[in-house]
Amino acid sequence: MSTTIRPRRARVREKQITMAHGAGGGATRTLVEALFLEAFRNPLLEPLEDQAVFDITGRMAFTTDAHVVRPLFFPGGDIGSLSVNGTVNDLAVSGARPLYLSAAFILEEGLAVADLSQIVMSMAEAARAAGVSIVTGDTKVVERGKADGCYITTAGVGVIERPVVLGSVLARPGDAVLVSGPIAEHGVAVMLARGELGIEADVRSDTAPLHGLIGALLDAAPSTRCLRDATRGGVGTVLNELASASRTGIIVSETAIPVNNQVRAVCELLGLDPLQVACEGRFVAIVGPEDADAALAALRSRPDGAQAAIIGRVEPEPAGTVLVRTAFGGKRVVLTPTGDPLPRIC
Amino acid sequence: MSTTIRPRRARVREKQITMAHGAGGGATRTLVEALFLEAFRNPLLEPLEDQAVFDITGRMAFTTDAHVVRPLFFPGGDIGSLSVNGTVNDLAVSGARPLYLSAAFILEEGLAVADLSQIVMSMAEAARAAGVSIVTGDTKVVERGKADGCYITTAGVGVIERPVVLGSVLARPGDAVLVSGPIAEHGVAVMLARGELGIEADVRSDTAPLHGLIGALLDAAPSTRCLRDATRGGVGTVLNELASASRTGIIVSETAIPVNNQVRAVCELLGLDPLQVACEGRFVAIVGPEDADAALAALRSRPDGAQAAIIGRVEPEPAGTVLVRTAFGGKRVVLTPTGDPLPRIC
Repeated sequence: MSTTIRPRRARVREKQITMAHGAGGGATRTLVEALFLEAFRNPLLEPLEDQAVFDITGRMAFTTDAHVVRPLFFPGGDIGSLSVNGTVNDLAVSGARPLYLSAAFILEEGLAVADLSQIVMSMAEAARAAGVSIVTGDTKVVERGKADGCYITTAGVGVIERPVVLGSVLARPGDAVLVSGPIAEHGVAVMLARGELGIEADVRSDTAPLHGLIGALLDAAPSTRCLRDATRGGVGTVLNELASASRTGIIVSETAIPVNNQVRAVCELLGLDPLQVACEGRFVAIVGPEDADAALAALRSRPDGAQAAIIGRVEPEPAGTVLVRTAFGGKRVVLTPTGDPLPRIC
Repeated sequence: MSTTIRPRRARVREKQITMAHGAGGGATRTLVEALFLEAFRNPLLEPLEDQAVFDITGRMAFTTDAHVVRPLFFPGGDIGSLSVNGTVNDLAVSGARPLYLSAAFILEEGLAVADLSQIVMSMAEAARAAGVSIVTGDTKVVERGKADGCYITTAGVGVIERPVVLGSVLARPGDAVLVSGPIAEHGVAVMLARGELGIEADVRSDTAPLHGLIGALLDAAPSTRCLRDATRGGVGTVLNELASASRTGIIVSETAIPVNNQVRAVCELLGLDPLQVACEGRFVAIVGPEDADAALAALRSRPDGAQAAIIGRVEPEPAGTVLVRTAFGGKRVVLTPTGDPLPRIC
């Protein structure tokens, strides 16, 4: 129960965002107090100074992501939950406990205040679920047509309390390659939400915070070498980056990779490789062989890791290359796509 | 001298940004390595992981700002230097020493790579001048027309090493009100750079890092109550926020406010109040009366504070109101503009 005196509750009277909401004067102040402060309220944000101040000690992780997903709302999430989980996960894969987030909004003139309000509530809910606070922010408005409703850039800080040493250069031959759950769901969900393909399928984004699951993994598998959340470019791009950084080869088995049926069907229909389609709530882990089984068991013991799998192994060569052993026993190279079959999915 | 082996220097071959540069695959990687890493190179950024990791101890400040200034280049600066200095200054006004910045780019398809390169070099130069490192980042691309070349969101962390207690609620009657230099230059420079007004004047943006000057002030004036950089909404908006937060009145003298001649002339021509026009390298300080002279002397002792001035005083009432005593001996209320006569100046 708060005992703060609130003499006058700010309210946004307009139905749509106007240029004035981004001008830094009275309209901006009202928007910040009525929408952002109401939804995100916490002691660090409350003074509404231009920065948040807190005490911290130790190893810290710091990250940022811009979010330009189109459409703003899709099955399983929206740009709000995505922008919180995306930054939470970039902290989590360093072994950090995410603590504080910033949120900078670029709003398009004409955006429905009701839509913005829904996005902001979704951010607040995602922050609560992830145990983080949104402690500082900024709002700008650009003219009609100069954005797609809104772009949200979050940054985050977290503290690394475990004695982990993680890095994409650390993978070594013999290590196991795991994914934390079925892949390609976010990319497919967003693509279908655009309604341009004439395909209907019940696919929801996997957007979710990963630090709880990662904590369980790190407890069970001290030999964890590196962690990466598989967003743009999908698991295939992450594997290529790891193979390249560690100068190893990575071989994965197509049949071992968890892909849910509807996602697989959509990918087949569109000629997409699920390995190249984004997730927003899955990570790739490279773990020493001695901990592979323990790692898998730890992941599967949690609901959010129930479909985790060991999908392959690190090999000495061909260095910098990712191979997939197909269901038919052949092998093919998994390339990093130059572009993306699915632009603006996050 | 770096002894790092660089087997192959990445190069962006395209003349313009394409959607592929934001897709997270090979083209994004090349852009990041060739432009961002080359310009910002430092040990924390170099691993190109999704987050930077460093040690920190003590009170920390954390802030963010989205930058959507139009045009991208203007006399005295560009969106690059602005996005670094803006975040450096939001840290500095908390008394923090700025340390690390993140940079998230939303690029418009078709942006000239040469322009982006110039912006990135300007960020690197501003970071060097401010003594901060850009340690993590993100790049997204949106379709042609969906942004104005580029939007840049920076976030920053700094450490508060001084035993300062600053806050907009702390102003009290009798305190002196100072500004660190001539006001309204940034807003006027950007407005003129749009070339829509048919006015020519030699006005350059004041964009600059403020933490050096603020350090000098805090050393000289331990009774400093609050500091605010005067950006959107100008000095007038800052004064209103301070009066409102501290439930005091603030009275300033029009003749005491430093405004350079060309800026004054442009404002008069356009009917603008310089108090409502943005700066990007000036701050307002509220200082206990016992330290007012020492504060002014400390500011004026530095080239970047040579035109600092005591512009007014905090009064017991009318609470929440800012008054200006005009050159003719009258008084008028300085309002917080609802919108802004000059949208998108930062």
